[in-house]
Amino acid sequence: MTATTTQADLATLVRGAVDQALARTRLTLAGARRLAEAAEAEGRTMGVPIVVAVVDAAGGLMLLHRMDGALPASTELAANKAFTAVQFRMATHELGALAQPGQPLYGVGASHQGRIVLFGGGYPCRAGETLIGGLGISGGTVDEDMAIATQALRAFSD
Amino acid sequence: MTATTTQADLATLVRGAVDQALARTRLTLAGARRLAEAAEAEGRTMGVPIVVAVVDAAGGLMLLHRMDGALPASTELAANKAFTAVQFRMATHELGALAQPGQPLYGVGASHQGRIVLFGGGYPCRAGETLIGGLGISGGTVDEDMAIATQALRAFSD
Amino acid sequence: MTATTTQADLATLVRGAVDQALARTRLTLAGARRLAEAAEAEGRTMGVPIVVAVVDAAGGLMLLHRMDGALPASTELAANKAFTAVQFRMATHELGALAQPGQPLYGVGASHQGRIVLFGGGYPCRAGETLIGGLGISGGTVDEDMAIATQALRAFSD
Amino acid sequence: MTATTTQADLATLVRGAVDQALARTRLTLAGARRLAEAAEAEGRTMGVPIVVAVVDAAGGLMLLHRMDGALPASTELAANKAFTAVQFRMATHELGALAQPGQPLYGVGASHQGRIVLFGGGYPCRAGETLIGGLGISGGTVDEDMAIATQALRAFSD
Repeated sequence: MTATTTQADLATLVRGAVDQALARTRLTLAGARRLAEAAEAEGRTMGVPIVVAVVDAAGGLMLLHRMDGALPASTELAANKAFTAVQFRMATHELGALAQPGQPLYGVGASHQGRIVLFGGGYPCRAGETLIGGLGISGGTVDEDMAIATQALRAFSD
Repeated sequence: MTATTTQADLATLVRGAVDQALARTRLTLAGARRLAEAAEAEGRTMGVPIVVAVVDAAGGLMLLHRMDGALPASTELAANKAFTAVQFRMATHELGALAQPGQPLYGVGASHQGRIVLFGGGYPCRAGETLIGGLGISGGTVDEDMAIATQALRAFSD
Repeated sequence: MTATTTQADLATLVRGAVDQALARTRLTLAGARRLAEAAEAEGRTMGVPIVVAVVDAAGGLMLLHRMDGALPASTELAANKAFTAVQFRMATHELGALAQPGQPLYGVGASHQGRIVLFGGGYPCRAGETLIGGLGISGGTVDEDMAIATQALRAFSD
Repeated sequence: MTATTTQADLATLVRGAVDQALARTRLTLAGARRLAEAAEAEGRTMGVPIVVAVVDAAGGLMLLHRMDGALPASTELAANKAFTAVQFRMATHELGALAQPGQPLYGVGASHQGRIVLFGGGYPCRAGETLIGGLGISGGTVDEDMAIATQALRAFSD
């Protein structure tokens, strides 16, 4: 009886641990929403209306928010920044450095039906070592987009 | 002095009326978020994980939320349903009825780079007579998608 | 001397006739504008804001006018109706009849990157037997679009 | 009675202010036509047959005119210049400077399904601070296109 109880407890314990581990390997809509809220708060503070996009580990769009007054081009750019960061598992500005004339990935922007962005504002989201999704911010200067995205990722991991 | 007060009041009144008139002709991110929350609440109640998309009066994407567990195809379908409803200023199931073989708009689905959806779940959002955007729901059966969308639109207009 | 004069006159005469013949085989911007004005006048009379598109004999867009308040989808549809009429050298409703299930051209709408329209409102423009371009009207019901287009073509040939 | 009159006057005043405010936030077909006429007159003066395109604040095509003898490529280029200027809220030559190798937006031309133009001839149209549309000119050298567009915009704002 004690043995049975222990076994049931153990099963519950294992199941809980597995669920938690799985949860850490994927981004939920709730998580994407927290990322977006952090980014939008930062955008408001800086006076920069942005578009924020969150994609899953396969590059599929999970969330897109366009703040009022955002640059029209930013809807596509934010989504593509998040997509690019997941496809190459690196920030878009890192990919951009590799894609300049004479650099190893010159011309990479022609692939993926025009969805590759080579300037800053797209970041992979990781849980520990695991890639769980991507974040794309567009609306301000490249420096502003990068500052907003990194601030949102920091707030998210806390 | 009374005259001055009146003039100041008048200016405030006019400015308020103008702001209200402009506000009525566009959907804000806050409004899109309320639409999404109403749709997601209905989806949870029905046990149907959905993707909800909101577009502006020109068909530009303002918000997309993918609930956890939603059908992969639903991301594109929800966005395209909202787009279609704005482009044709009618619900997608109404357009679908007109696009059957032998009906007036047979073949219309080939246009707009494959972004036209001919089954239910896409609706125009209006403020009075003015088209201010579109809502697209995908994830359940067509009947479920339509029920969720109409419920969200009802909650939104209240 | 009389002979010389006659020869010069003759040359002028021939050149004029050739120019006139060539002019009849192509649509000019002035001609496209007259077509558009006739269509827009008819649209105003009927209370139907339309998009009017005129293409040359190769299907290239020469003129597009979107009347205020026209259906968003109509920009692409009007242009594609004019294109279709030239590509198949027949009115779009005639092509549509051939493209119904069981008919000879069933499935033709899949070709030409989604630019084929299978319902009324697109017409070839001819000078005598020669195809010189195409006219596309979209904005009302299919019947209204066809009435506006045929009225504009009639006004144009007068 | 004075009160009643005042109220009626007030209502008229408010309605007028609202209408004016709304009018200032959008370009009409009549406005687009005036822009096109100014551009075409300038093109004729310079002996450069051009294509002129006007888009609304969301990038939707409102008017396209192809002058007789214009470069075939110019139809797509003029439309895309106007689209680009609205999407990025800046002239196309300004975007082009930011998109050179080593510059902040290098690679941006890959986005928006090939509709981004990085050389001169596309300009945003503003009413005060408000973006109301875009103008694209193509047909001459880049310098000629820019001269024609700026001349047309100047004539339009007068």
